[in-house]
Amino acid sequence: MNILIVSAHPEPASLTNALRDIAVDQLLADGHDVRVSDLHVLGWKAVVDRQDFPGLDPAERLRVPATSGAAFAYGTLSEDVVAEQDKLMWADALILAFPLWWFSMPAILKGWIDRIYSYGFAYGVGEHSDRRWGDRYGEGRLAGKRAMLIVTAGGWASHYGARGINGPIDDLLFPINHGVLFYPGYDVLPPFIIYQADRMDDDGFRATSGQLRGRMRALFTDEPIPYRRQNAGDYTIPSMELREEAAAPALTGFAAHLRS
Amino acid sequence: MNILIVSAHPEPASLTNALRDIAVDQLLADGHDVRVSDLHVLGWKAVVDRQDFPGLDPAERLRVPATSGAAFAYGTLSEDVVAEQDKLMWADALILAFPLWWFSMPAILKGWIDRIYSYGFAYGVGEHSDRRWGDRYGEGRLAGKRAMLIVTAGGWASHYGARGINGPIDDLLFPINHGVLFYPGYDVLPPFIIYQADRMDDDGFRATSGQLRGRMRALFTDEPIPYRRQNAGDYTIPSMELREEAAAPALTGFAAHLRS
Repeated sequence: MNILIVSAHPEPASLTNALRDIAVDQLLADGHDVRVSDLHVLGWKAVVDRQDFPGLDPAERLRVPATSGAAFAYGTLSEDVVAEQDKLMWADALILAFPLWWFSMPAILKGWIDRIYSYGFAYGVGEHSDRRWGDRYGEGRLAGKRAMLIVTAGGWASHYGARGINGPIDDLLFPINHGVLFYPGYDVLPPFIIYQADRMDDDGFRATSGQLRGRMRALFTDEPIPYRRQNAGDYTIPSMELREEAAAPALTGFAAHLRS
Repeated sequence: MNILIVSAHPEPASLTNALRDIAVDQLLADGHDVRVSDLHVLGWKAVVDRQDFPGLDPAERLRVPATSGAAFAYGTLSEDVVAEQDKLMWADALILAFPLWWFSMPAILKGWIDRIYSYGFAYGVGEHSDRRWGDRYGEGRLAGKRAMLIVTAGGWASHYGARGINGPIDDLLFPINHGVLFYPGYDVLPPFIIYQADRMDDDGFRATSGQLRGRMRALFTDEPIPYRRQNAGDYTIPSMELREEAAAPALTGFAAHLRS
């Protein structure tokens, strides 16, 4: 199978990148084809702006959905964006490896999403009618592929627990797992998370590496997070709210979007 | 009072920037001093990397907390970072105005946070002991100041409701409101949110502007979101989990961090 790993740490010798390399090593050992986009090595442009759309009439407003949609449709997206979109289409699985900065991804990775998730490619795909509201949340151009996060966090695991002060890690990652990955169709695997990343010693790294190798061996067999599919009957259309038949009225929040 | 507004939309004529200008207009009319950081006009560098720390020995690893902490302590942060930190210290209130892209802020704004929230400035502040775990979550260098988001979203309000498919907007914004703003001490006001931002007509803009002017007039009197303060007794130290006495054991997730 084909796997794309995108990493987003500025230090070549960081734990994030060391874990990325362990993942690559195991995937190659298992006979897969692997490509790596190290965003710092690529010198990735993080910011969506007018330079991305040189064909846009200077008199026209930059409306990101409309402008990126037209550029995608007419094949005028910039080369760096097209190259990453091509990698997404090539890959059977996508792995994002990054340090958790301020409870989200570093700007360079957010800018990778912002720039390559063009309208028509990652959103604005498919029929909008009274039966379907586009191909999203379980359907879309990237459906049938798998995705997974490798996250290094400086804080303690308990701070990210069900009653931890930072909020539960699964909820903090929901905007990424559900909103960025499930949205265009990926089946999303549970994340691989390291806490107190700055304090890891050699024994810890050996143990962690072994666990990560196990996750890589199971990349195509582990069960994905059971998010509800948008167009499979659980949601009203077009208001896109959970039907009472699908989920008891008292059930709200992120957890309500998991199949029971 | 002094107010800093940071905006992050690449199109000068965007709704985000039009609302920012309404906010500035009202605040000036009310006699406040206002500064604006339009990150696209500033050409803000979004990515944390080695260039930010020219004094770092080439043989040393870039460890973002340690390296940014030393640069903050020794006054060797880059000029653009110091300028924004100075604006934060000057301002009695901070307003972040941005389009919601992929359920979070655009990369350029995330990179403003990533780069100016140095260790020693926004985190790693204060005493760590068995009674306190640093000055954070309600305490810190920015305590006593207020913060508020102005967010434009393309999607429908119902999609962001309690049972909407995107997840509740307050939960999607928790990593920002609680994790980015409350963390270094801000009192965080409820966000001002516009849905279906691409569809707003003149009447809608007039109504929205009026509502935003009202929010600006109440910037220093509205009640902040009642997040629990870390060191006020609700959390165990150092595991930082909610005590049973503070919140019933069944209460979990982001909502548990609101005072009842």
